[in-house]
Amino acid sequence: MRDPKIKKYNKDFDYSYAFGIYPTLDLLKLKPEKVLKVLIKQEAFGSDGVEEILEICKAKNIKYEIDDHLIEKLAIKENTYTVGIFEKYQTELTKDTNHVVLVEPRNMGNMGTIIRTMVGFGIKDLAIVRPAADIFDPLIVRSAMGAFFSINFKYYDSFQEYFAEFPEQTNYMFMLKGAKKLEEVELKQPFSLVFGNESTGLPYDFSEKGISVFIPHNNEIDSLNLSVAVGIALYKSSI
Amino acid sequence: MRDPKIKKYNKDFDYSYAFGIYPTLDLLKLKPEKVLKVLIKQEAFGSDGVEEILEICKAKNIKYEIDDHLIEKLAIKENTYTVGIFEKYQTELTKDTNHVVLVEPRNMGNMGTIIRTMVGFGIKDLAIVRPAADIFDPLIVRSAMGAFFSINFKYYDSFQEYFAEFPEQTNYMFMLKGAKKLEEVELKQPFSLVFGNESTGLPYDFSEKGISVFIPHNNEIDSLNLSVAVGIALYKSSI
Repeated sequence: MRDPKIKKYNKDFDYSYAFGIYPTLDLLKLKPEKVLKVLIKQEAFGSDGVEEILEICKAKNIKYEIDDHLIEKLAIKENTYTVGIFEKYQTELTKDTNHVVLVEPRNMGNMGTIIRTMVGFGIKDLAIVRPAADIFDPLIVRSAMGAFFSINFKYYDSFQEYFAEFPEQTNYMFMLKGAKKLEEVELKQPFSLVFGNESTGLPYDFSEKGISVFIPHNNEIDSLNLSVAVGIALYKSSI
Repeated sequence: MRDPKIKKYNKDFDYSYAFGIYPTLDLLKLKPEKVLKVLIKQEAFGSDGVEEILEICKAKNIKYEIDDHLIEKLAIKENTYTVGIFEKYQTELTKDTNHVVLVEPRNMGNMGTIIRTMVGFGIKDLAIVRPAADIFDPLIVRSAMGAFFSINFKYYDSFQEYFAEFPEQTNYMFMLKGAKKLEEVELKQPFSLVFGNESTGLPYDFSEKGISVFIPHNNEIDSLNLSVAVGIALYKSSI
């Protein structure tokens, strides 16, 4: 019998969904203890990815079900062949390592892209200052493209709360009116790259809480897209 | 009487829509000769942006109409207060200047973000190799956030066709298996930054058609998001 609780995602659920074969595989490999169940479409059987999913499920004693109808009901995109249903979890950030801090991020696509970029440049700790998007929204899980399950993240009610927990970090505040050009900054480890949200950026008083930095661009645009700005900062931090 | 042709965007139309006050203003300022009509919501009257729109319409003898219902029918997002309806146009790329070349781009959000980033870093010529997304799709116009009307763009059926028109460009081919790290490359002007599409990247034989370049990242992700990769390359080209 179908579990009656499985329906379209809502942020109040205590579980979420990883849609698609590769996100499901990443979930199974990186957070197997959190997987509640895997759904598979009949037609997907035989593909390499699904064979690997089945092997892991059997080896780790994880439930799986064939249910095309339920997948179609849940999925946010066509051609979703598997869904990993997983329990939400909390993580702690790592001390003495580099972080990204997003202050009041709202755009889910940006958050997923930022997670993917962070992982690619070797930064795995993400602090999020509320109010903010729900990181477990399947849109974020999906746009992180598998990187989602590799990161640590933690929500804070204010930047002060984050700073109190990690007083050793050197905070680089990215803002249009930053004092230093990114290319002139030597990042001092452990650092935190701190970004404001998509529409308003960081409040100006953040410049007093760290080293304020800007990415020079002309004034024909108001600002860079948030995930592009974070990507440039992460690239710079990696070279 | 309402113009019966005005309905939800379709790529076969010979006109498109700029949704929102700021995109409408950019359209009016940068491509006034292409504007067919401006639609305004009743409730938006009195705001600074709408006052400016009205001034330009009057000064340039551009038609405007109040039509809340039609805006709601056309818009892709809630809270759209104005729509600029404009005739599609063709542009030529500029010789002896730097270009971005996108080979078979499909994701509209990425294309809009790339246009915005290009303009911010002072590059205004975009070559697009087909098959590709329709650049006039209102989603692209919108995600370019006003930068859309500042650029020149031209579609090509192949990279060869582009290269035949601009043989003087030094082509930098961004690919995972590129020969040189981005940070080790001295870009020779006029250059073209060439990127493949979101899922497959550039075909490997592109490495023979220019200087192949990669942005180093670890193998925990398959690739960077396209708009992030282009953003990093544009940043590097600007410093």
